[in-house]
Amino acid sequence: MSRKIVIVGGVAAGPKAACRMKRLRPGWDVTVIDQDSLISYGGCGIPYYVCGDVSDEKELRSTSFHMVRDEKFFDQAKGVTVLTRTRVTGIDRQAKAVFVRNLETGEESLVPYDKLLLATGAQPIDLPIPGIDLDGVFSIANLHKAIEIKKRIAQGQVARAVVVGGGAIGIEMAEAFTDLWGVETTLVEFMPQLLPRIVDWPFAAMLKTHLEEKNVRVITGEGATEIIGDDDGRVTAVKTAAREIPADIVIMAVGVRPRSDLAREAGLNVAPWGGIRVNNRLQTTDPDIYAAGDCIAVTHLVTGRETFAPFGSLANREGRIAADNMAGGVSLFPGVVGSYVMKAFDRCIASTGISYETAVAEGFDADYSLTAPADRAHFFPGEAIVVYQLVFDRKSRKVLGLQGFGMMNDSISARIDTAAALIAKGGTIEDFMTVEMAYSPPFSAAIDSINAAAYVADNLCAGLLRKVNLDRFLAWMDDFSAEPGWIALDIRHPQEAAACVEKFSQDKWAAIPYPEIRERHAELPEDKTMVIVCDAGTRSYEVQVFLDAVGKHNSLVLSGGFNVLRRIGVDWIPG
Amino acid sequence: MSRKIVIVGGVAAGPKAACRMKRLRPGWDVTVIDQDSLISYGGCGIPYYVCGDVSDEKELRSTSFHMVRDEKFFDQAKGVTVLTRTRVTGIDRQAKAVFVRNLETGEESLVPYDKLLLATGAQPIDLPIPGIDLDGVFSIANLHKAIEIKKRIAQGQVARAVVVGGGAIGIEMAEAFTDLWGVETTLVEFMPQLLPRIVDWPFAAMLKTHLEEKNVRVITGEGATEIIGDDDGRVTAVKTAAREIPADIVIMAVGVRPRSDLAREAGLNVAPWGGIRVNNRLQTTDPDIYAAGDCIAVTHLVTGRETFAPFGSLANREGRIAADNMAGGVSLFPGVVGSYVMKAFDRCIASTGISYETAVAEGFDADYSLTAPADRAHFFPGEAIVVYQLVFDRKSRKVLGLQGFGMMNDSISARIDTAAALIAKGGTIEDFMTVEMAYSPPFSAAIDSINAAAYVADNLCAGLLRKVNLDRFLAWMDDFSAEPGWIALDIRHPQEAAACVEKFSQDKWAAIPYPEIRERHAELPEDKTMVIVCDAGTRSYEVQVFLDAVGKHNSLVLSGGFNVLRRIGVDWIPG
Repeated sequence: MSRKIVIVGGVAAGPKAACRMKRLRPGWDVTVIDQDSLISYGGCGIPYYVCGDVSDEKELRSTSFHMVRDEKFFDQAKGVTVLTRTRVTGIDRQAKAVFVRNLETGEESLVPYDKLLLATGAQPIDLPIPGIDLDGVFSIANLHKAIEIKKRIAQGQVARAVVVGGGAIGIEMAEAFTDLWGVETTLVEFMPQLLPRIVDWPFAAMLKTHLEEKNVRVITGEGATEIIGDDDGRVTAVKTAAREIPADIVIMAVGVRPRSDLAREAGLNVAPWGGIRVNNRLQTTDPDIYAAGDCIAVTHLVTGRETFAPFGSLANREGRIAADNMAGGVSLFPGVVGSYVMKAFDRCIASTGISYETAVAEGFDADYSLTAPADRAHFFPGEAIVVYQLVFDRKSRKVLGLQGFGMMNDSISARIDTAAALIAKGGTIEDFMTVEMAYSPPFSAAIDSINAAAYVADNLCAGLLRKVNLDRFLAWMDDFSAEPGWIALDIRHPQEAAACVEKFSQDKWAAIPYPEIRERHAELPEDKTMVIVCDAGTRSYEVQVFLDAVGKHNSLVLSGGFNVLRRIGVDWIPG
Repeated sequence: MSRKIVIVGGVAAGPKAACRMKRLRPGWDVTVIDQDSLISYGGCGIPYYVCGDVSDEKELRSTSFHMVRDEKFFDQAKGVTVLTRTRVTGIDRQAKAVFVRNLETGEESLVPYDKLLLATGAQPIDLPIPGIDLDGVFSIANLHKAIEIKKRIAQGQVARAVVVGGGAIGIEMAEAFTDLWGVETTLVEFMPQLLPRIVDWPFAAMLKTHLEEKNVRVITGEGATEIIGDDDGRVTAVKTAAREIPADIVIMAVGVRPRSDLAREAGLNVAPWGGIRVNNRLQTTDPDIYAAGDCIAVTHLVTGRETFAPFGSLANREGRIAADNMAGGVSLFPGVVGSYVMKAFDRCIASTGISYETAVAEGFDADYSLTAPADRAHFFPGEAIVVYQLVFDRKSRKVLGLQGFGMMNDSISARIDTAAALIAKGGTIEDFMTVEMAYSPPFSAAIDSINAAAYVADNLCAGLLRKVNLDRFLAWMDDFSAEPGWIALDIRHPQEAAACVEKFSQDKWAAIPYPEIRERHAELPEDKTMVIVCDAGTRSYEVQVFLDAVGKHNSLVLSGGFNVLRRIGVDWIPG
């Protein structure tokens, strides 16, 4: 028996569900309704369109075989009816029909359904500050905005840009402006760090340093309080509590929220923050209404909490699962671990699971291993340092998250994706120690970064390794009186250590090269806490173990060592 | 109480175990014994040393902080005694001591142990053919051989090379000769394909095609029967059943076998094929003797069988685990999934788990999905096609293996490593459909390759997709009479399809573009089996589903489509 499937939303989850539905039930009638004229596009590609990497917006809404995914395509190739420029204004759950209005003609009608899918997506959050309606202030709400932004830049109207919001879209837009177009760009983030709640502060700091190297001005801990315009209503500047930043264009990228008014008005269960609540078959509280994509609340597999995961990849996955269930099958969505990856100029930053900060807040017996190994065999040409932080629970030994920062290639993805697979399965430190990463020198080290990170976690749990927290170490470097009993023990090559000894005095910065520690340990002070520093932290750990064995238990290891210090951009490193 | 730890073998597992042991038990006495003068080197880096990517052999035996790992280094930095040029000639298990002979002085002595670790590694298999002792015939047994090979090339003594053996080392050596040195190189493999037992034949074929593009002559299905030399005892040619191939140098790379004579002679349990049998704490049948690295038998987590996994990465891991247990802790080695990755010129080939061929032989209800997607968002610059084959068991829906072939970058590692993590945990098609790959257009597609491969597997299990096996299709293309009832249905763009229609006639090769199928399906024959072909196989699947819905059940899909056909190098593709 033929059924009528109606899908509200035509960007990611909607079209995916529609096409899957037609493959499962070719005889059923599938209609996608969207208020926009442009549908089924790769929204995550917008920054790459703006910067010119993607030359034509049509590429963002084309298939891999170069057909534009428009209404005609969906009709001809997929057998799916698409109504664009058509808004769903309400749901009559009793009658099982949606009210629609044609935005071109104003015509209103009723579209009946047997099963309804809400794939209404997310919308940019509007900051409640004066001036956001000025000409030249944009959010990245849809392709039309992107087209207009690119037009303005290409026409030379944009010399200075301000991006408000230091999340992924904000950073990617800042890169787009600076990299290709040479626009003088300032990124303003209200929180004390970039990518708040996604990565821990050292990773945000490494990212910030790189953005600054690439001529993006980054201001954190400062919110936009007003957008200022000229008499013609065109934007001229962004104001914060501390300054006024001139701007020809302003990108508002302070986050998105689920577009769920339709669901709420229909009486479906919607979380206070806006996510439509669904079961693991993606059914809303009305069994004939499903929801998928950026508009839903999902379960975080690490915290067990309801969360918001607006990713195009998840939207596609959820679309397929919703279609399976609407077709009468059983297909489950297990929840998310929050995998995340981003290009920022020549660097890649990525994470999965939860950060250390979040883990502490969630009440885990949280700890982390911070490592800075080579991203492939250290003798292979082109190898580069990559920084990883593995977050774990000391009690259960479960791994809670992994963050990575390194060169712009797929090396970090390999570790983050592997970690995501294990974390979703409740993976422990043991699982990470033994996970079998394919090895060959052009791709990895004999002890893979992810295994090494787990070894460090194992050593921390065993009490073999005692580390100093990075922020505490930096506070001491700022002001030695913060920890009067400390002295750095620099075990790097004497040529590397000399400048620090000279700058900070032997009183605060002792140097004995790593291979000489076994002979010279008697020189070390008994009455001070030694903070052992090297390049990556691995030699420091060995030295700590040795010092413990000879009765000197007063040492701490600076995890990640100078490899991390240099990347977070501390200014006190001599030379 | 101090204990004496003796470790036989100083390349990978041995040094790793020694250093870990000193960290766990700093007061214990740890001695490593090796018959070679060079120790603790990255053997997998040898081809990159020969080709010049790694300029000095010392880099292969240096730490990441540029210290050469020689006897002095182990003594000073690690507190480990290393006896080089010293051979262990026997084990007195009763007395708990090993007999050693100094290879320089001939002096013999007895070294007592409390715990003994055998990390004796593997040795190249010698083919029992005439001429293998000729000057200029080398195996890649150790660093000395590599140094001598590179010396000969650098001195201009090598214009023509023959590599016997189409496994990883053979292929990497062939690349090393050809790529930097321009040596005319022939690779001879006895089995019908390269990388036998590691990848299925289409992947070996894609690799072969690429090697040939790079001017390596590849001969498969032909074994070396004799090596021929001149009157001075220098190699001049390699003979097979079919030909004689001139050679100034011959690399024998027909595989390695565990070096386990010592274990066998001491009465330990050793598999007939040579692997030392250990429990999951890496203890041999003598509880005071452990074994780790290339000399042991390990459990394959997919087949449950005893297997041989000579990888430097596993050797390091096993070394750490052996040390933990020798120190009195409990640390388990769960077994292997056989992850594998290799650079071959501009391509990467990788696998984990078992191949389809192996799965069939092992009695699984085996099937595979063959896909050819883009390796990142298809609109992102630099994206390229990558080919994956996911092998699974239809009954249990467990994933048994994954193979990948694509561009030389870390993109395939990301999917292979993730798959390895899941396969080791008994992962199913569902796990692969939902594994959360970090998404952003520079790194991945909204539907990641690994999720897509699992979707295809799911569709195959559901009977939604019926595919033709590649070899059967190729046999038909060779000779249409092999399947008299077949006709190809080419749904690519008319410009792409036209040349095939013209070459093979409308009788054998029909063409209807993908978006026109819904209108024109009546033109299709009722009495023939249609093999639907496109570029990647995804559109073909959609067309099959549609044809089924209109009552035409006589179709098969060519998985991977022309993307795979072109890469395996079939010669009948016009244009």
